[in-house]
Amino acid sequence: MRNLITDVPGVKVGNAHDVRAATGVTVAVFAKSCVASVATLGGAPGDRAVTLLEPEMTCAVIDAVVLSGGSLYGLDAAGGVSAVLCAQGKGATFGGIVLPVAVQAILFDLMNGGEKDWLTKPVEHRPPYWDLGRDATLAVGEDFALGTVGAGYGGTTANLKGGLGSASQRTNSGFVIGALAAVNAVGMATVGNSKHFWAGPYEQGDEFGGHGFPAKNSSEALALRFKGQPAPATATTIAMVATDATLTKAECKRLAIMANDGLARALRPVHAPNDGDTVFAVSTGHAGLGGEPSILTELGAAAADCLARAVARGIYEATALPYATSLPDYRQRFGR
Amino acid sequence: MRNLITDVPGVKVGNAHDVRAATGVTVAVFAKSCVASVATLGGAPGDRAVTLLEPEMTCAVIDAVVLSGGSLYGLDAAGGVSAVLCAQGKGATFGGIVLPVAVQAILFDLMNGGEKDWLTKPVEHRPPYWDLGRDATLAVGEDFALGTVGAGYGGTTANLKGGLGSASQRTNSGFVIGALAAVNAVGMATVGNSKHFWAGPYEQGDEFGGHGFPAKNSSEALALRFKGQPAPATATTIAMVATDATLTKAECKRLAIMANDGLARALRPVHAPNDGDTVFAVSTGHAGLGGEPSILTELGAAAADCLARAVARGIYEATALPYATSLPDYRQRFGR
Repeated sequence: MRNLITDVPGVKVGNAHDVRAATGVTVAVFAKSCVASVATLGGAPGDRAVTLLEPEMTCAVIDAVVLSGGSLYGLDAAGGVSAVLCAQGKGATFGGIVLPVAVQAILFDLMNGGEKDWLTKPVEHRPPYWDLGRDATLAVGEDFALGTVGAGYGGTTANLKGGLGSASQRTNSGFVIGALAAVNAVGMATVGNSKHFWAGPYEQGDEFGGHGFPAKNSSEALALRFKGQPAPATATTIAMVATDATLTKAECKRLAIMANDGLARALRPVHAPNDGDTVFAVSTGHAGLGGEPSILTELGAAAADCLARAVARGIYEATALPYATSLPDYRQRFGR
Repeated sequence: MRNLITDVPGVKVGNAHDVRAATGVTVAVFAKSCVASVATLGGAPGDRAVTLLEPEMTCAVIDAVVLSGGSLYGLDAAGGVSAVLCAQGKGATFGGIVLPVAVQAILFDLMNGGEKDWLTKPVEHRPPYWDLGRDATLAVGEDFALGTVGAGYGGTTANLKGGLGSASQRTNSGFVIGALAAVNAVGMATVGNSKHFWAGPYEQGDEFGGHGFPAKNSSEALALRFKGQPAPATATTIAMVATDATLTKAECKRLAIMANDGLARALRPVHAPNDGDTVFAVSTGHAGLGGEPSILTELGAAAADCLARAVARGIYEATALPYATSLPDYRQRFGR
């Protein structure tokens, strides 16, 4: 196990970013089209081709999940992803036409210090996201970097640099589940300004430092004082979970809802009015049936755990952006 | 009154199309940002930035509604629209950054005979929709063409060429309401193969031929026999309604739901499994409050009437595509 979402058989992930603009795209593609749904619990989402993920809609399977910076401008990324998938013949076919389904969510990283040419000279400079989507798709593999990469490149939190995280585990029933998160939260992933992550209780090994959770909260009382990014906040955590359990679309919707609980445990606050927090859930169907309520309950619990861990890992692995106003990264603040 | 959605003060519409590819984009922009929502009753929708239109989401106002061909590939169009709006300084601003909100729905016109270079040589040829979105936005005005233009350029129905339609009216309460529809339905807008439109009872003047509804349905009994486009069908009708009544987002959602009844009256069948039927509802807020239930009821009834009329006008004004397999247009079939 790589402790990445790519431990789920048939899932590959690619990253691309624009260093000067301090933004990027992460894409997950599948060996064969997957059943999927979404649960959007943030108050200010930006997305592409997501209504078709609702259980009452006809579309049965999808071909890619796209996570991107750029806020609404970033929604061009799925176009570049779709072009590569079309060239590869991946997607539904209608009368010989290949129509990949690439679903997308975005995060707001427009004020992180990078040079956003398309905002200063629009039309003349197109947003880079179509190209980044293409490049991320051409870069997919089972190994991929975490931290300041892809859709997490430009991400921040209230006190530390955000980033791209991932984690995986095997359930008691024998299914593999994995999570992928681009963390750009309005809140904090750490307990106050301590080295402890809110996700500490769920940590496996020392995947995000091994510091566990503070035994007493006396010294951390300040942690419960509200601290969010100053307005206008560059908020949103976008994520996906995947499993090899065979699920229906409605069961994927349930999995996506339960996975959001991982965001609730790893970030405080989250699902806020200006957050676009969105979690996709994908079933590759490589293993047995996973929809029986007790099994789906276990999968949902594991999805939430993986997603909480992925959030902490994204911050733990991040490196600070180079601008004067940039937030420190976890290791600058607490060492390794 | 122009009998167009632009009779609603502050609404402008622009079209752009690619004649060789037989596809296009229609965009509606607003003098000031508008409250809006959406009701997606088709079973296979494709959309961009629509989750933010739900009443529980924070985003208060939008800057453009984009209707496009190209199925999921067409979802790049809102990017081109946003670039022009950004250059014009239209949209919400966050720390000096202009962030227009352009919501979009697409229709499937990929098999209408046009040359879709991006499907035969993907990546090398980008889909034309980003550029078409830009061009449609640069072309907006209070007068715009109907029929084989913009998002209706490539549209078809089960028996006749589809197209772009619009209609407007003033309610008893004094509000103006208008509809805009890009008709590409799996079903038929005419009563069987007759010259009568299902929308006949709602016709104003002779805006779509003045033939009214058949007085007796004996000769039209065959009309109730199901006829849809042969599979795989190039289905979907996408639309918007706008009013100068001041509405909340939840009231716009109600207006969008009631407006879908206009599609139900004008097309048979509609809202089918492979249709992406989507109706946006926009309140410009130029006139008085329109949310009181009796007023909103009248607005909803008028929205449905306008949308039914817009559908019929879109077909009535269309001209056939030039390919050997192209469907006839209404005037070829029935004269003017």
